[in-house]
Amino acid sequence: MSSLPNNIPEKTIERLSEYRRTLLSCHEQGITHIFSHVLAGIHGITAVQVRRDLMLIGFSSDTKKGYDVEVLIDFIGSILDSRNPVNIAVIGMGHLGQAITKYFNGKGLKLKIIAAFDIDPEKVGKTVDDVPCYHMDHFEELVEDLDINIVVLCSPTNVASELVVPIINAGIKGVLNFTSKPLNFPRGIVVENYDITTLLEKVAYFVKENEENNL
Amino acid sequence: MSSLPNNIPEKTIERLSEYRRTLLSCHEQGITHIFSHVLAGIHGITAVQVRRDLMLIGFSSDTKKGYDVEVLIDFIGSILDSRNPVNIAVIGMGHLGQAITKYFNGKGLKLKIIAAFDIDPEKVGKTVDDVPCYHMDHFEELVEDLDINIVVLCSPTNVASELVVPIINAGIKGVLNFTSKPLNFPRGIVVENYDITTLLEKVAYFVKENEENNL
Repeated sequence: MSSLPNNIPEKTIERLSEYRRTLLSCHEQGITHIFSHVLAGIHGITAVQVRRDLMLIGFSSDTKKGYDVEVLIDFIGSILDSRNPVNIAVIGMGHLGQAITKYFNGKGLKLKIIAAFDIDPEKVGKTVDDVPCYHMDHFEELVEDLDINIVVLCSPTNVASELVVPIINAGIKGVLNFTSKPLNFPRGIVVENYDITTLLEKVAYFVKENEENNL
Repeated sequence: MSSLPNNIPEKTIERLSEYRRTLLSCHEQGITHIFSHVLAGIHGITAVQVRRDLMLIGFSSDTKKGYDVEVLIDFIGSILDSRNPVNIAVIGMGHLGQAITKYFNGKGLKLKIIAAFDIDPEKVGKTVDDVPCYHMDHFEELVEDLDINIVVLCSPTNVASELVVPIINAGIKGVLNFTSKPLNFPRGIVVENYDITTLLEKVAYFVKENEENNL
């Protein structure tokens, strides 16, 4: 029932997630307050940007010691986190799927990878860091039983299209797609397509530009 | 010596990389021409966006059959690709490092992962899909010998900061950082920080927003 949702740009959401991770790390180190320019420096952006992002979510801090780390962590959480548990499944337990599962495991995040799916008999029935791997044949029923909301797609690219219908039928609400095939879903299902090739080609492009500009 | 570099937004660069991948796939299937609205549909964006992106790089097509797939592939290549070989190294050969190495291998891209680095004796001296894994002790000399321009950072987050100085000293020009620690480098070194947690938190946020808006 928030009045803000549609006003927060995607990039701000990304940065809020990043700020929180930094703040959690500060908190672990016993740091209680942080100035916007310090937070900005860690993230390689300007203090103005940090203040603008926090203003957008309605957070203000006028203490002379900077932002209260704990308060800001909670405030960002109130924006980003769902009140309900967010259960995630990984589809495709190759190296990338396993990397993502292990990466999340034990991080104490609100987002939890609770199941994996594959069709390879070598993988089905096994666990990776306590996450069980099921056969895709049981995808729809298990999504319902386990209350899975989001899938991370790490399947081979050539089968990505075939997964669209099962994902829709299962009632999945969000898809993080790491295959090379951009996927479209009906309105109401959030999809983020992140091909690692694109990230690398982008870095390579800006390296080239720097070289041409003799930086 | 291009006059365009600083005029092309990051997001356009990302989309050009994505368009090219789709065009290459069309080309493989024997498709010779594609309309902007078809390309747009595949990527879940508007035809106006596609045309704007291509206008930004100076590409125009007025054929009634749509864009010539091969010509557009080459044109995007002339913008994105370096004339020199782009050699990439992966630092940290855990699951993510291995996933990225295997993913790129044999894709016929201009970007090539030619080396990996780790400190784990179980990994050093081995190869993953023909990519040799060296000890980090030899990082600086091998970057020079092998003419490596870009690194993909897949190390554990807690050692990421320690890698900044060796990366600078080695003369690396671009860093794709997958650890949870945002890293800053001096001007002249391109860095993209991509924490997978952020991508997932972003999907989860928009799922939550959809639910609150009853979509």
